[in-house]
Amino acid sequence: MGFELDYIFNPKSVAVAGASESPDKTGHTYFKNLLDEFPGKVYPINIRAPEILGVPTFQSIRDLPEDVDYVISAIPNRDVLDLVDACISKNVKTLHLFTARFSETGYEKETKLEQDMLDMAAKGGIRIIGPNCMGLYNPRLGISWGKGFPREVGNIGVISQSGSNGGDIVSEGAIRGLRFTKVISYGNALDLNEADFIEYLADDPETEVIGAYIEGVRDGARFAKALRYASAKKPVCLLKGGRTDAGTSMVSSHTASLAGAREVWEAMCRQTGAINTYSMDELLDMLVAFSRMSKATGNRVLVGGGAGGKSVTSADECEEEGLALQPIPDDIRNELTEQDPFFGPWVTNPVDSSIMGGSNLKPHEVIEFIAKSPKYDVVINTVSAGGPWGGHDPARQQRASRILEHTIGISQNLGKPVALVLSESIPESREQYEVNLELRHKCIEQGFAIFPSMGRASRAISRLVRYYIWRTAELEELKARNSK
Amino acid sequence: MGFELDYIFNPKSVAVAGASESPDKTGHTYFKNLLDEFPGKVYPINIRAPEILGVPTFQSIRDLPEDVDYVISAIPNRDVLDLVDACISKNVKTLHLFTARFSETGYEKETKLEQDMLDMAAKGGIRIIGPNCMGLYNPRLGISWGKGFPREVGNIGVISQSGSNGGDIVSEGAIRGLRFTKVISYGNALDLNEADFIEYLADDPETEVIGAYIEGVRDGARFAKALRYASAKKPVCLLKGGRTDAGTSMVSSHTASLAGAREVWEAMCRQTGAINTYSMDELLDMLVAFSRMSKATGNRVLVGGGAGGKSVTSADECEEEGLALQPIPDDIRNELTEQDPFFGPWVTNPVDSSIMGGSNLKPHEVIEFIAKSPKYDVVINTVSAGGPWGGHDPARQQRASRILEHTIGISQNLGKPVALVLSESIPESREQYEVNLELRHKCIEQGFAIFPSMGRASRAISRLVRYYIWRTAELEELKARNSK
Repeated sequence: MGFELDYIFNPKSVAVAGASESPDKTGHTYFKNLLDEFPGKVYPINIRAPEILGVPTFQSIRDLPEDVDYVISAIPNRDVLDLVDACISKNVKTLHLFTARFSETGYEKETKLEQDMLDMAAKGGIRIIGPNCMGLYNPRLGISWGKGFPREVGNIGVISQSGSNGGDIVSEGAIRGLRFTKVISYGNALDLNEADFIEYLADDPETEVIGAYIEGVRDGARFAKALRYASAKKPVCLLKGGRTDAGTSMVSSHTASLAGAREVWEAMCRQTGAINTYSMDELLDMLVAFSRMSKATGNRVLVGGGAGGKSVTSADECEEEGLALQPIPDDIRNELTEQDPFFGPWVTNPVDSSIMGGSNLKPHEVIEFIAKSPKYDVVINTVSAGGPWGGHDPARQQRASRILEHTIGISQNLGKPVALVLSESIPESREQYEVNLELRHKCIEQGFAIFPSMGRASRAISRLVRYYIWRTAELEELKARNSK
Repeated sequence: MGFELDYIFNPKSVAVAGASESPDKTGHTYFKNLLDEFPGKVYPINIRAPEILGVPTFQSIRDLPEDVDYVISAIPNRDVLDLVDACISKNVKTLHLFTARFSETGYEKETKLEQDMLDMAAKGGIRIIGPNCMGLYNPRLGISWGKGFPREVGNIGVISQSGSNGGDIVSEGAIRGLRFTKVISYGNALDLNEADFIEYLADDPETEVIGAYIEGVRDGARFAKALRYASAKKPVCLLKGGRTDAGTSMVSSHTASLAGAREVWEAMCRQTGAINTYSMDELLDMLVAFSRMSKATGNRVLVGGGAGGKSVTSADECEEEGLALQPIPDDIRNELTEQDPFFGPWVTNPVDSSIMGGSNLKPHEVIEFIAKSPKYDVVINTVSAGGPWGGHDPARQQRASRILEHTIGISQNLGKPVALVLSESIPESREQYEVNLELRHKCIEQGFAIFPSMGRASRAISRLVRYYIWRTAELEELKARNSK
């Protein structure tokens, strides 16, 4: 459906118009990233500097010795018509415009310039990403707009109408173990738009999960169709910018998009199976859940709550988010009571680790032991090597290691979907920072989905379960329809 | 009303029954903290060790050379009746029991032991904190259960039925600049209970804001009366553990409390003016807002959104939480347009700093300039020295410093309540960790309330405004009633 656009995301040669010598300029970052990482031909275009980072420049695209697939524009808006003309002369397939100040200014002159540019490009057979956007991050190919985005390729494809939100998804996601196939910041969506990109990512075999930050939709019916097509193949997690009057007004000056009513958007998500979110944190949580947890098709949860108070608040938050805290099943209860007649009958779900001091039961072992029951579909465990304030406590670090070890057991030996709650708070002491970072790395290396709080974990898991239930029904309906 | 209990929180001498030589034991931490910080007499009680941390022990409270005000019990539950008897012989006023395994076990024998202990203490004139709790953190006096809780005294009083949640409030709050007057972990609330503590903190002149984590209420009518009394004097922020079936069941095995229906609790909060929250994060956010922001009595907000996408999501989140994003007033707009005819008309609220590159307007100055308008009651600004992934970027660090400098201007020169959004994410690089920690310290030193996201900031501020509006009306009603 959308995979014909694959050439857009996999150019063989790239030129940067407005490549800059100054490290503070985005025109420098684009070129430097390509020079460091992109295996194909890379050309810097600059009318003044004779060379950039040791590479001789060209004054214009017209001066290039051969055709070029992809051009990144970081030049002022007044020069874009000439640029498009030059691009046509070199058979450029895709023009990405970091260049901004078009229709989003709200001014007539700039809006007309944008339209003229589109008309000229369309006649010349050039597709446009943007304008007013950061463009493409394709780690497999070594194209990136960020300073230090991860080099590794992942399983998440993202489209973002905002460059800063797209960058935040990469950066905030990276520390939670997220890696990406392609991230596309597409700004004003003048030519290629959200529906094109969603269709493409739906068909992209590398992409297993899709995330999107969208401010406005060009063609509602086509977009809904693309969403339905994509959602039946893989989870699509959306964040809509411009849900309110204030947001809608802001959208118009940001990407000149027409934001629609919140109710219409929510109805479209329900009908297409797309997962709608209301903040960047929630969008990231859903990407973490879908890209790092195995399929969960039931909501019966076993929780390791840490201490007593946390176990209480965990129980509330899980139930309020729609998860079912199954009591300890009788057979498991009997075995626990055999192991310890005083503590066995007292063990609860969430498992309160603070009650077991001096007993025959070890909290980290108990949760793995209970998890083997088929009554539990999914497990959330809590791991902490110490609070963000106060000295480092080696005993807590050891406890965290033991809990992690047994949680790996649940995930590997029982094959159940598992999430970990791991604090995100920035510690006051350097020593605790190092300890927390090491623990975080271990959790990520073991493949766990990590969440900063029980509330956010339970909300994400509840929505993950609902999506898989929806998709199973959707596929069965499709099968039934096809067999008629 | 409750200030007669002041002696409970300000003992002149303390004995630790079950003071331990082993640094991993809580009986050690209590004693070590007292030894290091408490100015009065401190006695370690231990039946085996002749001395602890160089201090000669006593075998029993009975052997002490003089009376003692306050006893901390870290001995096994089977020995508590003898301990109470010994305490009576030394005119002990308060007994705090870290000792657990009473009614919370659900067992008959342990429940009876708890009741016998209460009866004996009551006859002997001893008040009980607990059992099954961490007890008192009074930084002014140097009593603490934590390893490394802040020494500084603050303006927040906290009661927590859970020791771990109480500790988390201190630790997670400390890195956001929160400091405390007294924090009381009170577990099973056998004698002194939530109403006693709320009344006390209401009358405590040092305490300006009250926070509470409560699992069950002993006497609903008395508690509601205490809440109303306290709320009219200072903000009371509550987190209820045991709102759901699962939570209620967990509460019973944690502190043997009877959790009530969520609807009853919510109605009580509405009627008494108490601020009800649904997670530890939200409780902390309200303590940050009330203890670190000046009084805001209107919801018209000016927002510094950072870049474009963030400005859009910020607008949505503020409006969804009930804040009013006032457009830029005409007089301010005219002045901005005089400064820059192209960019002036384009400036929005939230202020999108990414559009102003190369203009006569500087984003950090623009927000201070707009804030002077009386159309804005409160300001939320965004500050970031770089994302959590990727290399450190000195240019972003400089921008953060400039933004902070001008936000200080808004707070100091205009006297408006200001909140800052500052990411909490743990950075991947040590260099960025140091930079972020330094920025965080600066924000805290300047007295700002900091929030990890715009959504959480706007929610907290919206509730802060509603509380002050409620209290103003409440006080006027009271005045009108008294003048009749």
